[in-house]
Amino acid sequence: MTTTLRKGGQMAAEIAEQPAQWRTLLAEAGPELDAVATQIRAYEPHTVLLVARGTSDHAALYAKYLVEIRLGKAAGLVSPSTMTAYGARPDFRGVLMLGVSQSGGSPDLVRSLEVARGCGALTVAVTNNPGSDLARAAAAHVDVLAGPERAVAATKSYTAQLLALYLLLDRVRGGTGADAAALPDLADTLLERGGEIAALAERYRFAQRMVTTGRGYSYPTAREAALKLMETAYVSAQAFSAADLLHGPLAMIDPQVPVLAVVAEGIGGEAMAPVLPRLAERGADVCVVGSPAAGAQVALPAGAPEELSPLLEILPFQLLALHVAVARGGDPDAPRGLAKVTETL
Amino acid sequence: MTTTLRKGGQMAAEIAEQPAQWRTLLAEAGPELDAVATQIRAYEPHTVLLVARGTSDHAALYAKYLVEIRLGKAAGLVSPSTMTAYGARPDFRGVLMLGVSQSGGSPDLVRSLEVARGCGALTVAVTNNPGSDLARAAAAHVDVLAGPERAVAATKSYTAQLLALYLLLDRVRGGTGADAAALPDLADTLLERGGEIAALAERYRFAQRMVTTGRGYSYPTAREAALKLMETAYVSAQAFSAADLLHGPLAMIDPQVPVLAVVAEGIGGEAMAPVLPRLAERGADVCVVGSPAAGAQVALPAGAPEELSPLLEILPFQLLALHVAVARGGDPDAPRGLAKVTETL
Repeated sequence: MTTTLRKGGQMAAEIAEQPAQWRTLLAEAGPELDAVATQIRAYEPHTVLLVARGTSDHAALYAKYLVEIRLGKAAGLVSPSTMTAYGARPDFRGVLMLGVSQSGGSPDLVRSLEVARGCGALTVAVTNNPGSDLARAAAAHVDVLAGPERAVAATKSYTAQLLALYLLLDRVRGGTGADAAALPDLADTLLERGGEIAALAERYRFAQRMVTTGRGYSYPTAREAALKLMETAYVSAQAFSAADLLHGPLAMIDPQVPVLAVVAEGIGGEAMAPVLPRLAERGADVCVVGSPAAGAQVALPAGAPEELSPLLEILPFQLLALHVAVARGGDPDAPRGLAKVTETL
Repeated sequence: MTTTLRKGGQMAAEIAEQPAQWRTLLAEAGPELDAVATQIRAYEPHTVLLVARGTSDHAALYAKYLVEIRLGKAAGLVSPSTMTAYGARPDFRGVLMLGVSQSGGSPDLVRSLEVARGCGALTVAVTNNPGSDLARAAAAHVDVLAGPERAVAATKSYTAQLLALYLLLDRVRGGTGADAAALPDLADTLLERGGEIAALAERYRFAQRMVTTGRGYSYPTAREAALKLMETAYVSAQAFSAADLLHGPLAMIDPQVPVLAVVAEGIGGEAMAPVLPRLAERGADVCVVGSPAAGAQVALPAGAPEELSPLLEILPFQLLALHVAVARGGDPDAPRGLAKVTETL
């Protein structure tokens, strides 16, 4: 697939690299993850806050579900502007603050971790660059080991963040991350079917609007899928938790707004059951990505526990965004108006 | 204005009622707010979590900014599915959990507060119905006193939630809410200029996509504005914090995607300064709502401190959604596919 694409070759290559990068992370990150997990366990946080932007914010959202469900702690996503622009200096004693960023370079994230550290939080940076300002600002650092990412649209750094956050938080609760061992092979199986997605992309060649939706662990997938479609294919893609979709946005759905629904095996997928008939009532054109039992048009391989399924779920969407973008004449490696490292204050 | 609208008359009437409802809340809610604030102060929460759906979720997001900036505490928005679908039972000792809902009737919110209370949180429901299940499930209740809301699109209940949350959290930090006294008169001034918005709506008659953006306290306004445009006018409206907009979605902006930017006086508005030139580079059609000094096409009256400006900012967007919907032949009082009380599990 990658050799036939004149544009987007870098993004295609980085999508294809993901199983290999996960193998590297699984093989090499253990000692660092153990050390940071030990530090977190000793600190005994009552609350875990996350700070991130863009794609990394969706990895942070995934981690929020892990913290609430698997660690049983209060969790939240911080609005950086409260500390940077508004000068808030909250009492963060007992708070674990995780900063997630591919580059580790955005000044507002660096400042947020500095402030949080000064306000009593244990700060951990999760980046793809151990020499970054964010890594230096934090008390501890986890390297997601994704290798240099050159395409502007983040792909391999996203799944590396998901995996690193899973492995870190699994260790905090006393696990060894063993459930993740099967992921690279499952991803290989899925990526071998890339031709399916290239064919599916034809269907959306002229779509200006799209809706993505999922619930639970799959909601971050819907968010990240929409961002990829926005930033590479310039689609006005909107992501909703399936429950929020029913609280208003459903009215906007008609047969001209294609819906991509993530229905993975497990609790999040089961919670989609009341939503699909409501979409059908609105005449929506729905493509299900996920469980064959749910009638998925894009079937995901079985074998991963639900909390790890987001690593597989996002792969078809990365390919879809790439192929729609290329079909439209765009260059997903260098979307208009964007730079690889976004600096916000 | 309201008498000339054949459809949307209920929504128009409820928009117009807002200043009067705020006067009622300011005059009558004091004793209840004092009692709940005293309870919260005695509890000394280390973290404040909020749980809500739809429009109420945007009021919760506003409260999150108040908690981070003005109370100086850790804050987060809870994903209800973690407690309802996934069965999470987090350690919520020391957590204040605020449930925000117009009807107080959605089962997932009721269940979330029940679980949180059982897990050690102090729970407070903020609703427009003291007899609701959510009010009963919580340890304490704040009535937003908006009066019966009949239009499906929430308007007056939203600003009543904003005001009630502001007044409650101001009391928690020892204030009296005096800064809010001027709001009803400022809103009257703004609503008298409703003809401006009716004229502006003509411009968006055929727009299928829109972007709304703001930063800091104005970000919840951007979110709620987008929801109103989605659920009444069926626009694919996307809301972004102005910083997040630069981390990817900017690529999607072109002259065919109108941008509505909230640039209020104060820190949030100042933080929009780096964003507006980036939008101009993309050839965006930008309409600024806010400060006359920022060249706003829709000027907001001066006189409210920044943390209260969201009550005024949303009014032009409510009117805009109403007028665009009516111009398109829709009925904002009863959008397709929606009921007034949405029940999600």
